[in-house]
Amino acid sequence: MRAVVCKGKGSVEETLSEVDDYAEPEVGEHDLLVEVKAAAVNPVDCKNRAGNLSGHEEKILGYDGCGVVRKVGAAVKGFEEGAEVMFAGDITKPVGSNCEKIAIDARICAKKPSSLSFAEAAALPLVYLTAWELLFENLRLPTDGSGEDLVFMMLNGAGGVGSAAIQLARHVLGCKTVIASASRPETEEWCKSLGATHILNHRNDFEEELKRLGIDKVDVCFCGVDLDDQFDRIVAIMRPGGRIGSITVGDGSKIDVNKAFFPMRLTISFELMFTRPMFGLEVERQGAILAKVAEMYDNGTLKKIDNKHLKGLNKASFAEAHELQESGKAVGKITIEY
Amino acid sequence: MRAVVCKGKGSVEETLSEVDDYAEPEVGEHDLLVEVKAAAVNPVDCKNRAGNLSGHEEKILGYDGCGVVRKVGAAVKGFEEGAEVMFAGDITKPVGSNCEKIAIDARICAKKPSSLSFAEAAALPLVYLTAWELLFENLRLPTDGSGEDLVFMMLNGAGGVGSAAIQLARHVLGCKTVIASASRPETEEWCKSLGATHILNHRNDFEEELKRLGIDKVDVCFCGVDLDDQFDRIVAIMRPGGRIGSITVGDGSKIDVNKAFFPMRLTISFELMFTRPMFGLEVERQGAILAKVAEMYDNGTLKKIDNKHLKGLNKASFAEAHELQESGKAVGKITIEY
Repeated sequence: MRAVVCKGKGSVEETLSEVDDYAEPEVGEHDLLVEVKAAAVNPVDCKNRAGNLSGHEEKILGYDGCGVVRKVGAAVKGFEEGAEVMFAGDITKPVGSNCEKIAIDARICAKKPSSLSFAEAAALPLVYLTAWELLFENLRLPTDGSGEDLVFMMLNGAGGVGSAAIQLARHVLGCKTVIASASRPETEEWCKSLGATHILNHRNDFEEELKRLGIDKVDVCFCGVDLDDQFDRIVAIMRPGGRIGSITVGDGSKIDVNKAFFPMRLTISFELMFTRPMFGLEVERQGAILAKVAEMYDNGTLKKIDNKHLKGLNKASFAEAHELQESGKAVGKITIEY
Repeated sequence: MRAVVCKGKGSVEETLSEVDDYAEPEVGEHDLLVEVKAAAVNPVDCKNRAGNLSGHEEKILGYDGCGVVRKVGAAVKGFEEGAEVMFAGDITKPVGSNCEKIAIDARICAKKPSSLSFAEAAALPLVYLTAWELLFENLRLPTDGSGEDLVFMMLNGAGGVGSAAIQLARHVLGCKTVIASASRPETEEWCKSLGATHILNHRNDFEEELKRLGIDKVDVCFCGVDLDDQFDRIVAIMRPGGRIGSITVGDGSKIDVNKAFFPMRLTISFELMFTRPMFGLEVERQGAILAKVAEMYDNGTLKKIDNKHLKGLNKASFAEAHELQESGKAVGKITIEY
């Protein structure tokens, strides 16, 4: 089968190549064999390419994907051949979504929203799972819309995870005050279009920005950039009893949960979407979360988060996607249709 | 009125004295004036005496208390003169429970359980509020008994907070596996009598102790001793997605929420029972929690946690209580009946 293969670690030029004779994956009893129609690129793809996170010398990158089921493992329930599915993948496997066919545990898949194209749906799984697990499982915020009075802040609102989290904060948590950080006209506009009620410029002092917005303190802060650079500024604006969530720590050298956390009754939680498949812990929860997200797309609650579309299962499109992702200038998600 | 007064900071001898002419407190509109019948001593009393936590040069220590309402502020609802009440106090006030009369915000009081004596009830408020807020508000564990499959571990099971937390883990969270740390026959016995199902000797390696107990990993760890000395050992035994709670950090120098927290999806939360009255945040929640605890005493669910009883509003009884508390050998709570 056709695939964009990544060897070792380094730049796009050093690592990525196209092949046409990659072996088709074997299908385990819990797996679906999916013909991939579209994939999305995420920061983890670039990190894995540049630093070889997964430890496989030769690997096929790509976690998000969307396609058509071509074979169903013996133990699989709820999916049939021909079904259109989306998934966020499993970082421990050497074969991801950047190829024609992937074998993927059916428990971490869900039906594609029928209102979306393959590429539009491929943009959803990784970032919605990340945001949902962090907000509603780790931080245990309510999912019944009762969080209306909470002040929610998203650092890096226009990133992929931010684009999902802003919408979940509005429509699942029910917040009336969703602050997104952005510093360019196009990112401000993007965050507002997804439901952010206030924009904070992260290049400025957080406390002064909140004062300008007429907001006292923050109840929930979701950090979508390396936490170590933001830690002290976040702690300074939290209300007592506040909850901080992060999806990346940076080098971790500045994250000292010290005495400030104690009198303020603060909570901090970290999220890695790959933990469940990695440890085999309640993996079926991921399928269930994705099914809820699909439902909210089909009933018109959530807005699309894909913003840059490329075409072709080839090195050129992946090179462009990786470069845009690594530039830090991407707004929303980058998808590639095969 | 009669009071045991603490001046400055230092040893019992240097700081504590008895007086008979201390001015009666003024009663604010939200306050009850309570004739104190009994108080309990907690580690925070010793820390405030030794280090002057509250910043008041002259202060009356004592947070836990139980007594009879003698006057009711104009804005108070739900309490009448003659009512028997218990409370955990407010560390920002210069007058605590170690005196004949205290003015205390009615919203942080509850009716004394009718099945308990004043001294037995005085043992409850501070430690139950600490454990309840940490488990069910900060860590957001369920209160409907649905936590039966969680592995719960309490470090310092025989301490006051441990004595409360073991029981809440069994009877509110619903855990079937409650591990308490203890290292002496009397503390082991005490923890078991309160409902601990397993005893872990904290002088030994935690991983080996769990292996001996036939337990794989811990879902919830409640640290009732300085966290910085235990942090690495706790992180090493947590299951992915686990939740760590602490009520004291030590010097904080070793608490670096670093990369281990990220792939493990860990959450950590800190609790100080005085935060609500200190910041004026939903203080009425404390009255509501205490009312639930009182109900669970009156319906026979919870066991008494007072274990050492002293008598007399005088320097000798407080000196004895502080020394026992500071020895680290106290089992359960120390109470003083006036």
